[in-house]
Amino acid sequence: MARVALDLLGGDGAPEVVADAVATLLSEDADIDLVLVGPPDVAAELLRARGVRLARVDVLPAFDIVPMDANPLEVLRIDASRDVPRVSVMVAAVAVSTGAADAWVSVGHTGAAVTAAVLACGKVPGMTRPALAVVLPAIQGPVVLVDAGAFLDASPETLTQVAMAGWSYARTLGVRGPKVGLLNIGHEPGKGDELRSLAFEELASRLPPLGIDFIGNIEGGDVAEGLRAQVVVTDGFTGNVLLKGIEGTVAWAAKRFGEAYGDVGPARGVVREVAGGDFAGGLLLGVNGVTVVGHGSGSANAIRACVRLAARAADRGTVDMTRNLFASLAGKPVADGQANTDDEGGS
Amino acid sequence: MARVALDLLGGDGAPEVVADAVATLLSEDADIDLVLVGPPDVAAELLRARGVRLARVDVLPAFDIVPMDANPLEVLRIDASRDVPRVSVMVAAVAVSTGAADAWVSVGHTGAAVTAAVLACGKVPGMTRPALAVVLPAIQGPVVLVDAGAFLDASPETLTQVAMAGWSYARTLGVRGPKVGLLNIGHEPGKGDELRSLAFEELASRLPPLGIDFIGNIEGGDVAEGLRAQVVVTDGFTGNVLLKGIEGTVAWAAKRFGEAYGDVGPARGVVREVAGGDFAGGLLLGVNGVTVVGHGSGSANAIRACVRLAARAADRGTVDMTRNLFASLAGKPVADGQANTDDEGGS
Repeated sequence: MARVALDLLGGDGAPEVVADAVATLLSEDADIDLVLVGPPDVAAELLRARGVRLARVDVLPAFDIVPMDANPLEVLRIDASRDVPRVSVMVAAVAVSTGAADAWVSVGHTGAAVTAAVLACGKVPGMTRPALAVVLPAIQGPVVLVDAGAFLDASPETLTQVAMAGWSYARTLGVRGPKVGLLNIGHEPGKGDELRSLAFEELASRLPPLGIDFIGNIEGGDVAEGLRAQVVVTDGFTGNVLLKGIEGTVAWAAKRFGEAYGDVGPARGVVREVAGGDFAGGLLLGVNGVTVVGHGSGSANAIRACVRLAARAADRGTVDMTRNLFASLAGKPVADGQANTDDEGGS
Repeated sequence: MARVALDLLGGDGAPEVVADAVATLLSEDADIDLVLVGPPDVAAELLRARGVRLARVDVLPAFDIVPMDANPLEVLRIDASRDVPRVSVMVAAVAVSTGAADAWVSVGHTGAAVTAAVLACGKVPGMTRPALAVVLPAIQGPVVLVDAGAFLDASPETLTQVAMAGWSYARTLGVRGPKVGLLNIGHEPGKGDELRSLAFEELASRLPPLGIDFIGNIEGGDVAEGLRAQVVVTDGFTGNVLLKGIEGTVAWAAKRFGEAYGDVGPARGVVREVAGGDFAGGLLLGVNGVTVVGHGSGSANAIRACVRLAARAADRGTVDMTRNLFASLAGKPVADGQANTDDEGGS
């Protein structure tokens, strides 16, 4: 049974919406052992108000958040240097690094969560930059979009690492021989800006010898179809814009299609289903601990989905599989000197 | 009655799908005077096969296209130096620059169309880079996404020009006091990569004195809602990925929602309506001639929508309004030395 630490203080609706998710998880998901990370008195009051027996959930004390306008690295470096950290994402990430929990989840500030994971758990050897992987329920099956917003300063080298990590993650999801595509603005080689042009060359030369099928450029319109590629590689800026654009369009479609059918019910059902599935959160690839970052605006249902995603990743040993696959794929270390030395926070 | 030159040779389904669009336009859109640009014998045969009387449509002879793997600027500079150009986008753009047509449309290679427009029609003073503006049918009303793929090398300066051009275009669409947002990965100031961070400062300092309401950063998820901003400013790479991502998601939604309702008909109706509306093509802002670039995969219905968009822009004098507004807004010339000197092609 996976033990999942959940950040009570992250997200637009925290702590109430997170507490709603806890109540549902405790009644519906008996296979998950939940640890709540936040102020014990607040947690106790919220759980009591939801009719949850306090004995059913452990609470790890945490009292602070990283303010939205603060530099996560500055705040969290100070917090990490305390005997006992106080910031909820740091407390949760440390719980995973010490083995007190198998996975952790936050639906707060992405940059803070990524930074806490790197500081507390460390990076997988060979990954210069962790990357957020979101599973899209595409028409042809699951598609891993990576990086969905962990880091903004991509290079051909980091995009190649991202491709490798995304490919191994897709395999742990059960996708056989996942095809990797580079998100671009045209299918032909040479399309796009300088980063894309250089990354194309790098991916085309480095992936095939590792047994990874690189199919070249794909466009934004290919992503939701999921036919050309099951792993969509991009920088964190573009990935995050696309991810949120897809979410916004699904909401648009629910309204417009609902009107066309004269009944918005089934459309809302699809939206709920998507929002409550693996799409609800991103798994951070490239850190030595299962870390799931959800959307700050997520509902209790979406937060519950993030916890389930984290538990499944822990149960399946996704991080170990990724690390092992990465090590064996890499053969010789990738960007050796850089690994684990640069721990700047993301978005 | 607007006279619109239509490139017979551009697009995935050319020339047949373009000819299908011509047949529909001639029977349904009596307010548009169509000029077909392509090989006269091919045009004649295609039109005859569709039962169109040849006397009903003028044909401007053109014989070549810009190959997808070629550099449009190289190919079109050579073509522009001929006494009589041969490449269809060049012939069409020249027709507008000489007044032989009021607007032109291509659903082929975006970079080729943008380059032809710049070479033949010239740039609006003050615009260093033209930008492709696509009108999205957002929930709250039309939203102008700009740049949707004309140029990839954005700077804070060019993004400010793009914002101004997009704002004036939104006004010609009837949006009152359009609000301008910078596409980013968070709402707070300072979010995003270096370009976004610098562009935010530039937009915040330059737009308000011009009477343009800059509301700051918006996210991908805000675009399809259309509440925070009616003008979404971004670089051509991100804009193109988002645009195609939205299209792909609409197709995804038609399938998933259609299944949820047990009847895909109304969903397909919404898709057809969107694909056959203003969304079908982008208006190129910043060139001295009405230029509409459609999606290469567009149906005959979408191509017809592009022609209607071009005709409306010509009838409303959108280019003149944009140019006048731009000149008056700019007060002093923007990036004066650069205007009209750099005519490199786009994507």
